[in-house]
Amino acid sequence: MDLDLITSPEPDDVLHILYLTAITAEAMTAALAAGRRQMDWVGVYMLGCVTALGGGSVRDVVLGHYPLSWVAHPNYLLITGGAALATIAIARYVHHLRHMFLFLDAVGLVVFTVIGCKVAIGLDLPFIVVIVSGMLTGCMGGVLRDVLCNDVPLLFRAELYATVSILTGLLYVGGEMAGLPYNLVLATSMSAGLALRLLALRFGWSMPKFIYTHDLH
Amino acid sequence: MDLDLITSPEPDDVLHILYLTAITAEAMTAALAAGRRQMDWVGVYMLGCVTALGGGSVRDVVLGHYPLSWVAHPNYLLITGGAALATIAIARYVHHLRHMFLFLDAVGLVVFTVIGCKVAIGLDLPFIVVIVSGMLTGCMGGVLRDVLCNDVPLLFRAELYATVSILTGLLYVGGEMAGLPYNLVLATSMSAGLALRLLALRFGWSMPKFIYTHDLH
Amino acid sequence: MDLDLITSPEPDDVLHILYLTAITAEAMTAALAAGRRQMDWVGVYMLGCVTALGGGSVRDVVLGHYPLSWVAHPNYLLITGGAALATIAIARYVHHLRHMFLFLDAVGLVVFTVIGCKVAIGLDLPFIVVIVSGMLTGCMGGVLRDVLCNDVPLLFRAELYATVSILTGLLYVGGEMAGLPYNLVLATSMSAGLALRLLALRFGWSMPKFIYTHDLH
Repeated sequence: MDLDLITSPEPDDVLHILYLTAITAEAMTAALAAGRRQMDWVGVYMLGCVTALGGGSVRDVVLGHYPLSWVAHPNYLLITGGAALATIAIARYVHHLRHMFLFLDAVGLVVFTVIGCKVAIGLDLPFIVVIVSGMLTGCMGGVLRDVLCNDVPLLFRAELYATVSILTGLLYVGGEMAGLPYNLVLATSMSAGLALRLLALRFGWSMPKFIYTHDLH
Repeated sequence: MDLDLITSPEPDDVLHILYLTAITAEAMTAALAAGRRQMDWVGVYMLGCVTALGGGSVRDVVLGHYPLSWVAHPNYLLITGGAALATIAIARYVHHLRHMFLFLDAVGLVVFTVIGCKVAIGLDLPFIVVIVSGMLTGCMGGVLRDVLCNDVPLLFRAELYATVSILTGLLYVGGEMAGLPYNLVLATSMSAGLALRLLALRFGWSMPKFIYTHDLH
Repeated sequence: MDLDLITSPEPDDVLHILYLTAITAEAMTAALAAGRRQMDWVGVYMLGCVTALGGGSVRDVVLGHYPLSWVAHPNYLLITGGAALATIAIARYVHHLRHMFLFLDAVGLVVFTVIGCKVAIGLDLPFIVVIVSGMLTGCMGGVLRDVLCNDVPLLFRAELYATVSILTGLLYVGGEMAGLPYNLVLATSMSAGLALRLLALRFGWSMPKFIYTHDLH
């Protein structure tokens, strides 16, 4: 019937499929973090949901954007929690799949960022807040995971993670403001962010660190 | 005047009395956790309030359900903070009362869960979100307490705590949907949850743990 | 043109200037905490924003008071993040300026508290909630900083920090309710809070601690 849709899917459909892939992958990497802390199966389920859906939830609470995505689409709780549980069964093979997981995690970072920017643009928020909305969506799930695992968030020390989110957001918002075609803006911003993240992982790039050893008191 | 009320109190009045008992007990156990971290009296007061009222607050923020309970009923802040401070005075006897505290903590878990489910049902939310609302109300106070005490939340590793909340919620919502009498649904779901929690404590039941020792990077 | 404004500035203008000074100072002390955890530059930027603006954000989310201040005034994100980054450049001199930082941190505590009380009064909230709103605004930024740095919040153990916020809030709200002139109420409550904080720092005053060594289980 709609051949055009088959041969050339709508970009937002592609984005949605990437989103579902990304929350699945984020939940699975969170399950591994839970396993490192010897959490029980319920803990694995919950940490999977919080990590995969927490970034968007923090964004929505902070922007007053109700209902939250998993309240409107409760099946997201089944997808992410189910993926986390499934990870227990395949844990012995996961180590061999780690490059795939790191790739999917990078995809998640840029997909979440773009979705976060879109939400803020839809609320007519100023430029800087749009970028922050993308960052919160892309990065806060991992921060919540690390806080619940009692670690200093990796985000504050890791390989260009937040920087990738900022770059992706700037390219996406800049392209939108310049009136470029949506497909092009989406593809360019996400590809550039993904490339930077993968290069940073490959070559161990990181932002300079600030090291301070005095106490203020 | 209203003999009927005296001989047969409204179930929601019973629930409210159980709620007040439960937030008092949660605040007192939180005070002991504060004492283990050598917090000062103000810290004891605040950790008591956060632990007793934090679960409902997280639920209300996540669901956009304003005003929060302690904003509408600020005396809850006096009850819980006061109970936490009173714990300092009786700390030397508390150890002998620990079975009572564990019992009251279990009562709190099922009471908070049922209240959380009721709030979500009142907002016409889907089934899964109602169960999650019960869990957030029942469990998040303890998670906040553990995060503020710099521990990995006990919830993710402990004796069927979250499982009890899920079972209670399922029985409560299932009974409501089946159109059973409110009194019966309330009594059954809370008794079953309470029994499971006490049996888990007595026999050391727990969910299987997921143990994973590799690093993803 | 408006000589009166020049010779006698509006108290709320003074409050706003103090607010901008305070968020700058809070961001700079947060940068030092980030440096102690060897965070990278992006982490320094983000911890600066979270610490300086997090207290007001928690207050607004908890009270359902949208939009949050930095959503309405995104330049606050540039001021605080920029101040945090600038701290890296001047870190070697900061140790000599630590008395000034502790003074500005104390100014921030009372300014944030008064602003938090004003927001809650503007929402017609009850007395206790107004005091809590002041405390959340004054103290929660530091709690978020400590949680993200994986410390037990200093607030729960430190020199009268929360107590100063409560005293400032009580004097401010009491003065407002008594119908005293706004200028006088503002000056008195903030001066008293500032004096108590500086005296507590100078003489090492602190609230009594609650020390409890038993386990409940």
